[in-house]
Amino acid sequence: MQSKFSLSLSACILIIMTTLAGADNYSNSELKKATAARHSQMQMIAYHTGLLSEMAKGSTAYNADLATAAAENLATVASMKRITLWLIGSEQGAIAKSRAKSEIWSDSIGFEKTALAFEAASNAMIIAAGKNVDTLRTAMSSIGKSCQSCHESYRGPKN
Amino acid sequence: MQSKFSLSLSACILIIMTTLAGADNYSNSELKKATAARHSQMQMIAYHTGLLSEMAKGSTAYNADLATAAAENLATVASMKRITLWLIGSEQGAIAKSRAKSEIWSDSIGFEKTALAFEAASNAMIIAAGKNVDTLRTAMSSIGKSCQSCHESYRGPKN
Repeated sequence: MQSKFSLSLSACILIIMTTLAGADNYSNSELKKATAARHSQMQMIAYHTGLLSEMAKGSTAYNADLATAAAENLATVASMKRITLWLIGSEQGAIAKSRAKSEIWSDSIGFEKTALAFEAASNAMIIAAGKNVDTLRTAMSSIGKSCQSCHESYRGPKN
Repeated sequence: MQSKFSLSLSACILIIMTTLAGADNYSNSELKKATAARHSQMQMIAYHTGLLSEMAKGSTAYNADLATAAAENLATVASMKRITLWLIGSEQGAIAKSRAKSEIWSDSIGFEKTALAFEAASNAMIIAAGKNVDTLRTAMSSIGKSCQSCHESYRGPKN
């Protein structure tokens, strides 16, 4: 009974803390900065995906060291803690240039799932990118699907 | 003798490889993209340093979870492989908006040293940020010195 009570109490505290975190009121300046930081994160993802994609297509010569480093950087950027970046109140319409759908917060479990899928695809790319161009190309397909899946569900139309 | 010969041969191969890497001719488009990606990296560093700095100054309330996440993201961004970002030929004057001094490449050992010092300061911040605002403030001082040291030696004047 003691153990069950402790568990319920912990669960309650967690719910209260989550609710409080969701109720945070960030200033417009904080929300704008977080949005800009997310855009930088996306830009770094696009840059490293681009390096890998060019090699996969044969537009640039395959280079195992560069491909591995690009994949490592991709996985690094994908692993960033979301708490500092996805501040509640920074959705499209509320903050200029933001394309973040409100579903990121209303469906936070689904959003976390797609983010974790992207982390997994990026991690899988590290070994694949260093092997040869064929394994890189196959892993690129998973990365592409992961990007598309998240954008379809959680990115709004162009501003 | 066999071992010394192998070592010398390895050293020669390394020198040749390094020279070749330095002689890479990147297209203007590749250099521009790498420069933009570096700016995104710097922007993410500035954002997370800003979050920590505001808490250190008392401008925002100290929040151990947010501070730890900010420090983790800082260390993550600092750890990115430099090979994809610091392409030779993307120095100030050669590429618009670049403020990278040519010393980054001519003194690559010194540059690597300052980059590793920043990684170390960011990693030290992870524990410090989660403890209390005083330990955060002390670690912030090392971060600031590390930023300043690199900018003084390797960042050119405003464009």
